[in-house]
Amino acid sequence: MVSLSPASGIDYNAAPPNLSTLTNNSIVETWRPRAHVLPPSYHIGDPCMHYTDPQTGLFHVGFLYTSNTTGGAAGATTGDLVTYRDTNPDNVHFIVSGGINDPVAVFDGSVIPSGINGTPTLLYTSVSYLPIQWTIPYIKGSETQSLAVSYDGGANFTKVAHGPSIPGAPFGVNVTGFRDPYVFQSPQMDRLLDSAQDSWYTLVSGGEHGVGPAMFIYRQYDVDFRDWEYLGKMWSEPANSTWGDGTWAGRWGFNFEVANAMFLDEEGFDVEGEMFLTLGAEWSYEPIQPQVSDVRSMLWAAGDTRLNDRGLPAFQPSMAGYLDWGRSSYAAAGKLIPSTAKVSQKSGASDRFVSYTWLTNDFYGTKDFPIRQQGWDGALTTARELFRAVISNVIYNDLVQEIASWRVSRLNTDGTVELATLGQRIVREASDAFKTKAMKVVSEPNSTIGDGGRTELEFSASPSSKHFLLTATLEFPFAARGIDSDVKAGFTILSSEHESTKIYYQLSNESIIIDRGNSSAAAATTPGIDTSNEAGKLRLFDLKASNGSAYMEPLHLSIVVDGGVVEVYANERFVLSTWVWTWYAASNNVAFYHEGSSAAKFSDVMIYEGLVDAWPGRSRVSNSSSGI
Amino acid sequence: MVSLSPASGIDYNAAPPNLSTLTNNSIVETWRPRAHVLPPSYHIGDPCMHYTDPQTGLFHVGFLYTSNTTGGAAGATTGDLVTYRDTNPDNVHFIVSGGINDPVAVFDGSVIPSGINGTPTLLYTSVSYLPIQWTIPYIKGSETQSLAVSYDGGANFTKVAHGPSIPGAPFGVNVTGFRDPYVFQSPQMDRLLDSAQDSWYTLVSGGEHGVGPAMFIYRQYDVDFRDWEYLGKMWSEPANSTWGDGTWAGRWGFNFEVANAMFLDEEGFDVEGEMFLTLGAEWSYEPIQPQVSDVRSMLWAAGDTRLNDRGLPAFQPSMAGYLDWGRSSYAAAGKLIPSTAKVSQKSGASDRFVSYTWLTNDFYGTKDFPIRQQGWDGALTTARELFRAVISNVIYNDLVQEIASWRVSRLNTDGTVELATLGQRIVREASDAFKTKAMKVVSEPNSTIGDGGRTELEFSASPSSKHFLLTATLEFPFAARGIDSDVKAGFTILSSEHESTKIYYQLSNESIIIDRGNSSAAAATTPGIDTSNEAGKLRLFDLKASNGSAYMEPLHLSIVVDGGVVEVYANERFVLSTWVWTWYAASNNVAFYHEGSSAAKFSDVMIYEGLVDAWPGRSRVSNSSSGI
Repeated sequence: MVSLSPASGIDYNAAPPNLSTLTNNSIVETWRPRAHVLPPSYHIGDPCMHYTDPQTGLFHVGFLYTSNTTGGAAGATTGDLVTYRDTNPDNVHFIVSGGINDPVAVFDGSVIPSGINGTPTLLYTSVSYLPIQWTIPYIKGSETQSLAVSYDGGANFTKVAHGPSIPGAPFGVNVTGFRDPYVFQSPQMDRLLDSAQDSWYTLVSGGEHGVGPAMFIYRQYDVDFRDWEYLGKMWSEPANSTWGDGTWAGRWGFNFEVANAMFLDEEGFDVEGEMFLTLGAEWSYEPIQPQVSDVRSMLWAAGDTRLNDRGLPAFQPSMAGYLDWGRSSYAAAGKLIPSTAKVSQKSGASDRFVSYTWLTNDFYGTKDFPIRQQGWDGALTTARELFRAVISNVIYNDLVQEIASWRVSRLNTDGTVELATLGQRIVREASDAFKTKAMKVVSEPNSTIGDGGRTELEFSASPSSKHFLLTATLEFPFAARGIDSDVKAGFTILSSEHESTKIYYQLSNESIIIDRGNSSAAAATTPGIDTSNEAGKLRLFDLKASNGSAYMEPLHLSIVVDGGVVEVYANERFVLSTWVWTWYAASNNVAFYHEGSSAAKFSDVMIYEGLVDAWPGRSRVSNSSSGI
Repeated sequence: MVSLSPASGIDYNAAPPNLSTLTNNSIVETWRPRAHVLPPSYHIGDPCMHYTDPQTGLFHVGFLYTSNTTGGAAGATTGDLVTYRDTNPDNVHFIVSGGINDPVAVFDGSVIPSGINGTPTLLYTSVSYLPIQWTIPYIKGSETQSLAVSYDGGANFTKVAHGPSIPGAPFGVNVTGFRDPYVFQSPQMDRLLDSAQDSWYTLVSGGEHGVGPAMFIYRQYDVDFRDWEYLGKMWSEPANSTWGDGTWAGRWGFNFEVANAMFLDEEGFDVEGEMFLTLGAEWSYEPIQPQVSDVRSMLWAAGDTRLNDRGLPAFQPSMAGYLDWGRSSYAAAGKLIPSTAKVSQKSGASDRFVSYTWLTNDFYGTKDFPIRQQGWDGALTTARELFRAVISNVIYNDLVQEIASWRVSRLNTDGTVELATLGQRIVREASDAFKTKAMKVVSEPNSTIGDGGRTELEFSASPSSKHFLLTATLEFPFAARGIDSDVKAGFTILSSEHESTKIYYQLSNESIIIDRGNSSAAAATTPGIDTSNEAGKLRLFDLKASNGSAYMEPLHLSIVVDGGVVEVYANERFVLSTWVWTWYAASNNVAFYHEGSSAAKFSDVMIYEGLVDAWPGRSRVSNSSSGI
């Protein structure tokens, strides 16, 4: 990585020029995260193709990767989910497009860790024709699912020398998309479908023109994964319909992408646990324009899978929500990490499902972000553990009774209920490392803030960099609740006299909002610096204390700031990831923020500064990042 | 074409050198036919992709073609089935391999004359992986069926920009082959399968490992032929089984190729006529060696197609035979020529089915024939009209009652039966042209030959070239019949003091034999000059004359000699095509041949010398033939 040199002529203490006019790689470090997964240079796309190598026990994180010349996928290994090592230190792909099955592109895939002859075996979308999008007629055969095998510990995946294992969409289905095969095993499925024990299944994401988005399911047919038997659409939704009224999981859209299947309990992964799906939903505002997908939503759903009247598996969601509310956060891909993996032997974690999300830098290629000047674009968000979360002692009132991202899982005799939902937390090793390896730790005293007007209270000690973890708990009185509430409370971060970003909870619409309106001085000079707001819904339930009294569920915030990346985690069931492109070196300040007539109590406010260098093995100056 | 020049240093009046040692193209003319379809130079493969252009009314003859650099298909047009014009005068393919669907090869296909947007539309086998053979494990996806369309009168077929219309073999079928889609329409099929009127169907030839050869049938699914619905195996036979005892149709082998479907009556093509199939059968002698298919048999079958218990079409043969008994004659491909076509308007022919067969020069690439010295290899046999032949007044005796290449179609009250079989005759225009355009016509007087020993009687006037049609009728007394018969009768052709080829009927085994043992002086010096015998079975039935007496069916022979090509047609239901590679210029003599204790009557013996120049538009010296 390039240390910013005065020679670059860029002054982060003065107003920025139009960054698009700068030389290539002149702002490599400006917004580069240090604790996140991203390649040394060029473009990262969807995370995918993760696996734990049965030989080494290392976890492999994969992602689509396009260098200046070549498209395909690349990856990294990690022994601790904190630091990573490029699978190929010379920064080459482990698979590239251009073969017989994939002459045009390699799209997402997933790995059977002990596949063909016991070696890691990748099932991926091999692309023969473009363009592909749900807004335009589907080019038959443009997406097929093919195999590749690694014989060298994941440095290269060699394509299996036969045609696609799944040579096209199901017959007669005019698909909107047919990609991103996600392999999984499930004793539950085996029993349901009378399959051979330990059968592999794969979901293929897509949809049907004029019908709606869908997940197609296939079952392994032979030991070499050469053939996969089509078992139908496991899940489909009417085109552009919503879950409930759309409040909690948005639109199903027109096409599903990047479906993942997992089985979760309260600890993490459990093959006999509840089936959860994560999925991307694509849709557009009216009028739909060819090749424009305005919105991509990163969602999840959980529910039951039963046999339909044709004896095929059919999934029916009972709750659904956003895996990440950030509009640039998409294409999550996760994988079971068994307790026996090297990673988990260190932390003592039981089986768990770890997921990464893609954070696009240029809104899926639609915005003129100064990518060439930056020398790289995109990153993966911090790895998360997914689990089946339980919210206990919830008072059984109207707040609970909705088609929503939770479900009543138990009715108690004392008038409370237990709710189930998808739980998400920063992967424990990273969370620990951010705290234990911090260069500086600042604790702010607890305080109750709010005088009826607007308050911004500078922290006693703000970070001196743009790499930190901020944690806090906020508590609100019942008086702050309601659609007519004027209360907003949270923090101002990345702040200076020129720039400022607010992250707050707004009680009137139960939303966490990232106000980026004044977040970047560069936005005034440079196209593609998005300063629109980000927002997501989080309901704070009414809880019953052990003494019988009622109180509003506290808001537990964890905010990761890592260069341009900002991730907001709340209550282990809400995530919003986005970019904040501050310009000024001075924009490091953090403040309490409050507005409205009811005060909020802030407690356990901590800043852990520094995060970690996730890539200790990388040279500080990447050769390849100077070659655009 | 090159006139043989003394400068070549080749003396056709002296014993040949080892021809493999000669320079390239030094023997271009030696065995080159003039009345047959073949490209100016290089390799012709299977005939296929024929059609009548709805715009011009011209008939297009297609064939696989490999130049010195490129594989694909080329073709010619004809307005009279006698003379041809290269579709691309500069001798380029109309389709070449190397596209997204067919990176490795283009195999056989067939044409919907008014296909996508009313233009000629080719459905062909697009090849992605090699090797492919029934003797080795099948590489999944190696053969798919793709579309190409011609917008320029057949000079080029442009590949349709989507994946294969049939993206692979049926799921779960471990095929031995899956190629050569043959499109056809059939109101009978439409009614049977409750299809839309004028639906197109396609047969795909192949087989299943461990099961046997098969034809897979698909039905058109959309107006653009993008999708084809699988309707099952229309026909399958146990691996390596035979029709009856194998006498009349040999083995079904292990894999079918080049299946054609047609509907015939006594006149020719009739959509409401009986369904006939022509097919290639591949098998080997024991032990089967990988990638060696010892035998390829060019067969036909006719029978009924009904619905099986799954409501899918199932063909059951009621008679089957050889379309051509020549061991080098294979891969027949034919097409309906409607009465409205320009070709047929001249001749006044009603709808007919015209078929060409491939004559391999080097036994399917397995023999070291001096191809580079010849500058070309292979040819198509003379076009034939196929029809449902009827043999009338056949005495109903043991000769009739067999599982054979005929079927009793009517029992008469007078003790005779009518037999049905596949009829084949040289396409009428060519047959007429060979006679009417002959440079010289010689008629031999009728004679009865046979003195108990061996007789060779020179014709009163032999041809002065190796291009002629010989016709004759031979009649035998009943005394000549039987497995202990010593009678053989026919002709010696292409004869000189050094070389001679005998073509005769041998009554003891009801066979027409081409004895090539002494046919080529070059065989003694040059590898790959095959002088083994060729043979085929033809039963001469007992017929009842109008006066009530019985007589043996006469043998009507037509022998086409065109350079190295020799085709024997008998009784409009037997064809045997092969090569005879005479060396000496003097080897032009023709003689009557007879052996055995019963005399034979020869009548209507005619020689029409010269045949036709099928390629009047080609320059005499082909540029491209000098470029190997």
